[in-house]
Amino acid sequence: MATKPLAHTRLNSRRAEICRAAARIFRQRGFDATSVSDIARALKMTKAGLYHYITSKEELLLEIMMFGLDNVRDEVIIPARAIRDPEERLRQIIILHGKITTRAEGSVAQLDEVRALPPLAQKKVRELQRKYFDLVRDTLKELKAAGRLRDVDVTVAAFSTIGMILWLPRWFRQEGRLNPEEAATEIADLALAGVLTPKPRARVTPLHPGIKRSAKKR
Amino acid sequence: MATKPLAHTRLNSRRAEICRAAARIFRQRGFDATSVSDIARALKMTKAGLYHYITSKEELLLEIMMFGLDNVRDEVIIPARAIRDPEERLRQIIILHGKITTRAEGSVAQLDEVRALPPLAQKKVRELQRKYFDLVRDTLKELKAAGRLRDVDVTVAAFSTIGMILWLPRWFRQEGRLNPEEAATEIADLALAGVLTPKPRARVTPLHPGIKRSAKKR
Repeated sequence: MATKPLAHTRLNSRRAEICRAAARIFRQRGFDATSVSDIARALKMTKAGLYHYITSKEELLLEIMMFGLDNVRDEVIIPARAIRDPEERLRQIIILHGKITTRAEGSVAQLDEVRALPPLAQKKVRELQRKYFDLVRDTLKELKAAGRLRDVDVTVAAFSTIGMILWLPRWFRQEGRLNPEEAATEIADLALAGVLTPKPRARVTPLHPGIKRSAKKR
Repeated sequence: MATKPLAHTRLNSRRAEICRAAARIFRQRGFDATSVSDIARALKMTKAGLYHYITSKEELLLEIMMFGLDNVRDEVIIPARAIRDPEERLRQIIILHGKITTRAEGSVAQLDEVRALPPLAQKKVRELQRKYFDLVRDTLKELKAAGRLRDVDVTVAAFSTIGMILWLPRWFRQEGRLNPEEAATEIADLALAGVLTPKPRARVTPLHPGIKRSAKKR
């Protein structure tokens, strides 16, 4: 697969624009049913102009996936690795990643067409996905070793946590009741409560068990 | 969309066979890149023989989605509705549904090509998906009203629970360490611990906090 400058200028906003627009069209019409002309039209470019950046539709697909994975590395993996406490690290992984998934109507995060990539590109994408998975599972393992987890299967917990995060763009509505950070924070709260041993403060028996909690949340 | 007998004979094992085989090919090659001839070949049928059951590729896609939704109705929604206690109902929804998702290598559960259906068929599928979502959320609401939930957002919790279940076929390996029921039970355990107020027995301070738990789970 040819490597053109686009793949190497991460901060290039043109890259983000092309990737997001193409991801949106692939999502709407399906990868195979979308032509390079369709994408050029959506970007108000000529087909020749778009071919200046990409050599094929498959390269564009890889580019979108790498764009998504680069964002996860820069905005989730690197900041999370700097957090020492594993509980706080896991919380931030979920919040930071959850927020990213809702961008561009979730079209980049939801584009799951690895099967349409050539074998080497598939391998590259899967290796990076695996790296992220390992970060989540290793964090859970660290919590387990510290005696801070209930008796959970850390592999199932890691996959399920990622499932909750990557499900977010499927139901999230930009104009809805919650903003991306609030939705991601709720998911972090659910995921952490699902795996952690209850904290001492949770063990306090309420003095007035009859008093109902605020019904603010829906 | 024409309705042929196939759609109305739920117990027809030929229906299951066709739906699963077609779902598998659609997953592997992509919906748009798969021809009716490809599916006929995989089923060792002639194209004419397959057209005896379906009138178009779009009808086959709807048929697969309805097959999946019929399974959820018969094997999850109906049995779950009969369970009075909302906690046990939620647990069984997750276990029963989780098990179904791993069938046929998860190809039916993972086939998410609603966009390729005609508008009326899309509406039909979305209505049934909504019915299932409502069952999950209403069960959470019932638990909330009974004071059995932590301060969680029941809408986020419902979507996230469904996300954990529908993520299962993406990572589950038939020859792996866990069978479908074990994996689904782990997910139910994570999801319930994520939303429920900790039970009184969880509040007991261990007598020997230094003693490590069994490391059986990975």
